[in-house]
Amino acid sequence: MPDPSDLARAIAILTEDDPPRVWSFIITIFGDLAQGEGDAMSGRLLARMAQVAGLKPETVRVALHRLRKDGWIDSHRDGRRSRYTLTAYGRAQSAAAAPRIYADAAPKPRAWTVLIADPNGTDDALAEIAGRTDAVPLGTFGMLVPEPVTPDDRALLRVTSDAVDIPDWVRAATCPDDLKRGYQGLRSRLGCVEPLIAPSAASLESATVRVLVVHSWRRVLLRHADLPTTLFPADWPGEDCRRAVMAILARLPRPRLQVLEAEAAD
Amino acid sequence: MPDPSDLARAIAILTEDDPPRVWSFIITIFGDLAQGEGDAMSGRLLARMAQVAGLKPETVRVALHRLRKDGWIDSHRDGRRSRYTLTAYGRAQSAAAAPRIYADAAPKPRAWTVLIADPNGTDDALAEIAGRTDAVPLGTFGMLVPEPVTPDDRALLRVTSDAVDIPDWVRAATCPDDLKRGYQGLRSRLGCVEPLIAPSAASLESATVRVLVVHSWRRVLLRHADLPTTLFPADWPGEDCRRAVMAILARLPRPRLQVLEAEAAD
Repeated sequence: MPDPSDLARAIAILTEDDPPRVWSFIITIFGDLAQGEGDAMSGRLLARMAQVAGLKPETVRVALHRLRKDGWIDSHRDGRRSRYTLTAYGRAQSAAAAPRIYADAAPKPRAWTVLIADPNGTDDALAEIAGRTDAVPLGTFGMLVPEPVTPDDRALLRVTSDAVDIPDWVRAATCPDDLKRGYQGLRSRLGCVEPLIAPSAASLESATVRVLVVHSWRRVLLRHADLPTTLFPADWPGEDCRRAVMAILARLPRPRLQVLEAEAAD
Repeated sequence: MPDPSDLARAIAILTEDDPPRVWSFIITIFGDLAQGEGDAMSGRLLARMAQVAGLKPETVRVALHRLRKDGWIDSHRDGRRSRYTLTAYGRAQSAAAAPRIYADAAPKPRAWTVLIADPNGTDDALAEIAGRTDAVPLGTFGMLVPEPVTPDDRALLRVTSDAVDIPDWVRAATCPDDLKRGYQGLRSRLGCVEPLIAPSAASLESATVRVLVVHSWRRVLLRHADLPTTLFPADWPGEDCRRAVMAILARLPRPRLQVLEAEAAD
């Protein structure tokens, strides 16, 4: 068993200066622990996890109301208690993000495609390339995609190759300063947290550490495109963070909901 | 022997509405007939060819003076007469243009390279791609080159491939309206001239037709990049013109200078 005070210190490190917003934290809880169809969590468990994370448990009620209104979750009465599940929409959103969040490596390029739209054209062609989440803009009218692409739009110039010369200005554009600072902060927090985490039995506290790590990770990760590491600058802190996240998650395996519900009911 | 009146009609068709400028016509004469080291033409022969082409022979003297001043030609006294040769610079210019002018087909693509410069960068990278004569601009910061390219400048993004999807806006950009009009006019003139040209012995008149055809051809040809036909619109008149030019030149082989000098001395 890990020292409970180590888990408490990990939670403090993961939340100090930058506590999660409750509604967003609840989305991470569901995405990490209750993404399956039929997975349900009690309001009491959600409030206890928020409390362990240093959040005010009374804010959970407001956040759940908002998430229901936004179509993320459904609630059901179960005797005197409410039980919550992701909606089909919420499950689809979580499932879409999961492969990125839990990937143990950045994607490998499968090819390199450059798409260029008519600089004097309408917005139609641009909309198609601008909508990609795995692409790097090249100025206003171009896009670099690390895989083969066959655009529907015949107005795009397209070249696909196994090799590409990537200049530094492309790498600099994938990593704006505020994103780099976000990753640097996360790397420093994970560097303090990782030594505190021993392989751990399921508990409200270890599950909360796990969810907070996933939460911190997805909040920076999903702010940028899902790109091969070669498209990031040499001092990109993203892969250090990924390695630390995966090491911590391996020591804190996903708990069964019944175990957490039982502890929350104590 | 062709009917001399046919050659005279051909000359009229090739010069009406758009007579060549004398200094430019002289460059074509040297490029077509006297490009070799040591090839010399008398002032009398040049004046006679200008006269046959409908130009005022007295303008030749001024044009030769200008071409000497610009470093294109040298003059030497030969008794009472002046003889003219291309300078090393003039020969180099002519030799650089000759492969394009006399090619019996547009270049085949050897690959497709897209180069993109930093849209927020300095002009340095752009200068390298903008200087290419076998490339198509893609907006302000990109270039499509129909061959493998390894740029010196590490600030260029580069992708090279055997295949490319070329949209119509790229083709439209290679063929601005004034260039298309130039080719349409040339196609129509060559369409009238070609039936007039029978295989012909060397004469001042047949040599003048030959030089005028080369001159009309190079004046439109060298206004645009040397590109595979797939980069031009479907209604591009360039290849029709090339076929007609090559057919006419095959019937009017390059004359020996002595034959022309002898006729000019009559």
